[in-house]
Formats: sequence, structure tokens, C-alpha cells
Amino acid sequence: MTKLRLDISMSLDGFIAGPNQTVEDPLGENGLRLHDWVFGLASFRERHGGEGGERNADDEILAEAVAATGATVMGRKMFSGGSGAWEDDPMGDGWWGEEPPFHGPVFILTHHAREPVVKQGGTTFTFVTDGIESALEQARAAAGGTDVALGGGADVAQQYLAAGLLDVVQIHLVPLLLGSGTRLFGDIDDGPLGFELTRVASSPTVTHLRYRGLR
Amino acid sequence: MTKLRLDISMSLDGFIAGPNQTVEDPLGENGLRLHDWVFGLASFRERHGGEGGERNADDEILAEAVAATGATVMGRKMFSGGSGAWEDDPMGDGWWGEEPPFHGPVFILTHHAREPVVKQGGTTFTFVTDGIESALEQARAAAGGTDVALGGGADVAQQYLAAGLLDVVQIHLVPLLLGSGTRLFGDIDDGPLGFELTRVASSPTVTHLRYRGLR
Repeated sequence: MTKLRLDISMSLDGFIAGPNQTVEDPLGENGLRLHDWVFGLASFRERHGGEGGERNADDEILAEAVAATGATVMGRKMFSGGSGAWEDDPMGDGWWGEEPPFHGPVFILTHHAREPVVKQGGTTFTFVTDGIESALEQARAAAGGTDVALGGGADVAQQYLAAGLLDVVQIHLVPLLLGSGTRLFGDIDDGPLGFELTRVASSPTVTHLRYRGLR
Repeated sequence: MTKLRLDISMSLDGFIAGPNQTVEDPLGENGLRLHDWVFGLASFRERHGGEGGERNADDEILAEAVAATGATVMGRKMFSGGSGAWEDDPMGDGWWGEEPPFHGPVFILTHHAREPVVKQGGTTFTFVTDGIESALEQARAAAGGTDVALGGGADVAQQYLAAGLLDVVQIHLVPLLLGSGTRLFGDIDDGPLGFELTRVASSPTVTHLRYRGLR
């Protein structure tokens, strides 16, 4: 069964991006520090067309996530940083470059329909206007038995979480207090949601906490 | 050197108490679930005058914290649930019973001076009106070389954190989304605070993350 999985770097105080996010600074102030653990890893460099890098326990976690992913779902803001009509979006073709790091089908949640965009290296961006369940269904079909990765951002993650559609959540907990910014977990009206911890792995710079959603 | 240590149970979404806290329900709705991991442990029962209980990896973590603690600092609300003048506080003598579980000196931060209260089993409550540094200094002197435990609540923890006075933070991360309530980590104006992860231990019900404060 294809699982919907959220892999996300979070500060100890619960932020997944710093304050004052802009198109130029999409992770906000100090937000890049949440991802410091990943940039030096061999699997990250490989996926982004680079070479070398470390092969350690963190790299194994990342490589596992990459290998398990057959399709990706993400919000419009994660795609281009913009909103509203595509013709008014300065990064309307996405900010992921000519060869995006997905190397597979990506489904973008948006209110503004458009034709798919095909990039180099196997990435296709398909735009879904009829909601999170439709996007998930399309991604599941495209994933061919492997996982669907939820690419974010926080609002999209919160929608899937509240709908009980997340099968696996893997938090990469970074020992840092950002102090402000965008939280992964906002307020939930619907009462407590339970998770089951299925794995812990850690290095000095990041703790990987893998949970199974209980509903 | 006596360390100031915060040991605290936190939900995956960052809450240390549920919503709608009252004197009758001091942990708020579902807040007790943050402490489910602790009630069955031998060290907890022993400290609260009970018998039996489990001796497992979680119990070792708890026993270690108990053994390392020579004095405790806490806020007024943790002491009695109240605020304002003592004569108007329905739990003015504290809600910890005749034999509180501290078995040592406890320093209460308050704006309202009063004489110390001596309880059975070695617990003394001393009231400190001249701020967090004074309370820490008095607790350090009383701890006799062992750690000072910061007993909470969230506002007091945040004050010590912001002042850079916390030497060790041990988060007992519970795989539960409470959805709302009181967060341990509020917004910090002063920019990022770094921690160093010094230990991870985990059972299926709780993950113990021990950090050293970097300033």
C-alpha cells in the first residue's frame, strides 16, 4: 500500500521556517539552519546534480526517503513562492530550476488551473485544483506502489494531518530555537491526534523521529 | 558546578499543558496524557510514597533526574495554581499535599513575600520575590553541588531560557498532538538559541532528548 509520508526538518521549538519569509528568502531568517544537516550529505548532492559528500547515518536516512518516494505532493507556495493568477507570478515556472531535485511526478495544489510543466531529469509538475484528496489520489496512482512524499509547506501539511491522511511523519529535529517563524503544528480544533513512534535515529546535529499516524 | 536543569514532558506539537487549565484541572484538557509514561514507573511511585511499578529504561531516566536534583525552582502557579495575595489563594499552602514529592528545598518565584513553609518528608518551600537570578542563586547554594531542577511552568522556563541560564534541557517528547494549550517554547525576540544534543533514549511511549544549552 502506497503511504503518504511527511519528512520535514523542524526546530526544537517547532518551527519549519524562520520569520519574514519572502520570495527571495523562502525559508525566512535563519530558516536555512534547519537544513544544515542535509547539505553536506552524499545523497543530497547526488539528487541535486553534485558529487561527493558524506555517507553517514544521516545520509542513510535521507537516501532511504529518496528511494522510497515515487511521487510528491506540495502546495503552490512550495512550487513558486507566489499566489494568485499564474501570469502575475514572477516565478510562475517554479523556482526549482531546469533540473529539479524531484526526478519524478510532482502534484501542486493550487486554485489556478494550468497545463503540466515538464522539466529535465524526470520531474513533471501537474497542477491540481480539486483539493488535497484528489492530489493524493493522483500521486498514489503515479507512485506505482512506492511512497508519496508530502513536500509542504506547513499549511498543506496541516491540512493532510487534520484530514487523517498522513501515514508516516518523520521529523528531523534540529537542536535550535528559532524563536519565531512558521510552525509545523498549528492549533487543531478536533482534539488530540495520536502517533506511534516507530524509529529513532540521531547524530549530534539532528534527531530523526519516525512516527506512524494512528488515524 | 551545579547545573540548572529543565526536565519536561512535551507533546510532539510543543505543548506542555492542554487547553483550559484551571485550579481543578491544572494540566488542562488531555494534559495528563503527557505524563502517562511516568505514572507506572517505580521511581515515580517511590517518590510519591507508593510501591511497585516498572523498572525499565524510562524509569532509569527518571531515577537519574531524581538522584541528580538537590533543589527545585518553580513559579507561583506551579506551587498553588493561584496568583495575587496569599490570603486570597484557595490553595495558598500549595497543592502538593502534606508530603510533597520534592523531598528537598523548593524555591517559589512570587511577587508576594511570605515566610517559608515546611512540609513532611524534607520539602521546604521558600518564597523568592527578587527575581529569577536570586531564586537560582539560593537554589544553587541549597543544592550542595547537585543539580537545580526547574519545575516550571512554561513562563518561568521561558524566562530562564531567554536569560541563558539553563544548562541542561531534557525534553520527554510524547507522540501526541494536543492541538492547543500552553507551549513550552514561545516566541523569542532575541534570535536563535543553539543547543547541543547530548543523549537520546527512547521507549515506544516517550523519547528522552537531552540537550546542553550553548549560551
